[in-house]
Amino acid sequence: MKTRRRICILTDGYLDLFVAKTAVGLLRYCPDEVVVVVDSHHAGGDLAALVGCGAGVPIVDGIQAATAYQPDHLVIGVALPGGRFPDAWRRHILDALAAGMHVVNGLHTRLANDLEIVAAAARAQRRLVDVRAVPQPREVGTARARSTRARRVLTVGTDCNLGKRLTAMELTRALQARGLRAEFLATGQTGVMITGSGLVVDAVLSDFVSGAVEAEVLERGDADVVVVEGQGALMHPSYSAVSIGLLHGVVPDRMILCHAPSRSRFRNTDVPLPPLPETIRLHESLLRPLHAGRVVGVALNCHGMTENAYRETLDRTRSETGLPAVDCIRDGVDVLVDAVLAEDEPNH
Amino acid sequence: MKTRRRICILTDGYLDLFVAKTAVGLLRYCPDEVVVVVDSHHAGGDLAALVGCGAGVPIVDGIQAATAYQPDHLVIGVALPGGRFPDAWRRHILDALAAGMHVVNGLHTRLANDLEIVAAAARAQRRLVDVRAVPQPREVGTARARSTRARRVLTVGTDCNLGKRLTAMELTRALQARGLRAEFLATGQTGVMITGSGLVVDAVLSDFVSGAVEAEVLERGDADVVVVEGQGALMHPSYSAVSIGLLHGVVPDRMILCHAPSRSRFRNTDVPLPPLPETIRLHESLLRPLHAGRVVGVALNCHGMTENAYRETLDRTRSETGLPAVDCIRDGVDVLVDAVLAEDEPNH
Repeated sequence: MKTRRRICILTDGYLDLFVAKTAVGLLRYCPDEVVVVVDSHHAGGDLAALVGCGAGVPIVDGIQAATAYQPDHLVIGVALPGGRFPDAWRRHILDALAAGMHVVNGLHTRLANDLEIVAAAARAQRRLVDVRAVPQPREVGTARARSTRARRVLTVGTDCNLGKRLTAMELTRALQARGLRAEFLATGQTGVMITGSGLVVDAVLSDFVSGAVEAEVLERGDADVVVVEGQGALMHPSYSAVSIGLLHGVVPDRMILCHAPSRSRFRNTDVPLPPLPETIRLHESLLRPLHAGRVVGVALNCHGMTENAYRETLDRTRSETGLPAVDCIRDGVDVLVDAVLAEDEPNH
Repeated sequence: MKTRRRICILTDGYLDLFVAKTAVGLLRYCPDEVVVVVDSHHAGGDLAALVGCGAGVPIVDGIQAATAYQPDHLVIGVALPGGRFPDAWRRHILDALAAGMHVVNGLHTRLANDLEIVAAAARAQRRLVDVRAVPQPREVGTARARSTRARRVLTVGTDCNLGKRLTAMELTRALQARGLRAEFLATGQTGVMITGSGLVVDAVLSDFVSGAVEAEVLERGDADVVVVEGQGALMHPSYSAVSIGLLHGVVPDRMILCHAPSRSRFRNTDVPLPPLPETIRLHESLLRPLHAGRVVGVALNCHGMTENAYRETLDRTRSETGLPAVDCIRDGVDVLVDAVLAEDEPNH
């Protein structure tokens, strides 16, 4: 596609930093233009104040109002647990098709399985794109990614939904800025929407997660560094299968642990988060039979924290883990890039 | 189904204890009758000598010879990595349909997607059963299984393919023999074929593994004990996603670690197995944020070992782990049942 898409993002009722992470990712990184957001709960509101980016992009209460900004694509901008979309949104999708927009969906629920939506798209001659509808990979993983020329970096997390994609994209940019051939591998719906490549790993059959990831890493194996977007969290009861499949598919040389200090429990559960050193140890232990990969830095998500509290959090995190730590949005990723590029100590 | 099925098992070329594990499971546990095995490499051979069970069941070289034993079902009796079947087997399946057999398949490759096979089944008016073709569950796990009345027991492994299903079935029988209401939850193709219930977990989308398992456990939650068949191994690069999804879906109170002392590397890889205490520690660590479940015994697969070597292995395993250990086939599961039923020590 030569011309930039004009994107209308649908978040209706879910416009917050974490649930609307697809919207936030597109606002922050997408080379296409986001021209309007549809969210009836926040119509007329200040997008940047709500989610920390997208200054000046209007929020309107429905598709009809959105058409004033001449969008040509409607993108569903949320990541709800389980990947279904609310029934009420079918109306928005039908309206968008009638208004001449193509519709891009990253949830597990497939537009292509909804007969009314399919018929409406056909009438309007618009496309339906289900980002999670990947051809099913059919190879089990065998840790072949260990053979890449590229250094393999994986962002992992103490929880889901706290900045693993953002950290991986920032790392990639910063590595490229240092003159290295760094490739980003998207593994979730937002990353795939932004880059147009990669694989939505949680839509792969569980038997083939590591194999599918391994194949994607090998394709990029001639770069200097492959930076892979992590998913979920190893101890999160909802997402651990996806997380460990990534760990064993990438077989990373280096991991960056992403953490939101404001969280005390795994998202959408009553389960307390374990301490950072325990989480670091588990990642390294689960990898050790395959490869001596290490966690080399902590990326903190300190959204909304005062400067003093942030500085205290940095100090505490550094002393607790013995690793460099930073909020990439506040201070950039340079210290993490250094950690990723550092050679192993001889006795490690 | 009132009448017992007469089963012809197809293993052609793969009749060994580990790859033909579906065949072995059916021979050992299926309430239906296995009347013949098709394997051209071992035609005329002694089945019991080859796989340790099935004494007296003839091995023949093709479907035509098998028909003399009047089978009414052909069951594909192998578990190949990745779950595909060899192209050459399509001939056997077509022959079996023409000879009036229904065909049961537990591999990922679907008979229902093969137009020639579907047409042949229609002509012969025979059924095609794809055991892995489950309706896709769509709920993420949230560790709700913690609420069951039943004690939850999971068999886990140092590797794939070494006796997790067998151990779980033996435990269930022994618990029932002690007068307890024990329910077995099958999670692989063989277990589902034998029991007609459960779920082939590795055919579930990775996002929903723990949720699917959780739902199956909750359905059986009113029993005294639910014994769940484990899959794969937490550190096996091919199967870890399935293994951790089971761990976090079942949230077991007790785990039995299955181990084959003859293995030094993860099956189909060059990766050395970690020591037993490390494997035990990892299972307990990955569960700890959710639940204080423990490994309470070791089930050894000492197939082919001399009695002296077996006794030495038992002693070594007990002293290495501090846990009761036994080969269930040689000595029965009583010590493991005791360990499963023992109360927690107060300070654990």
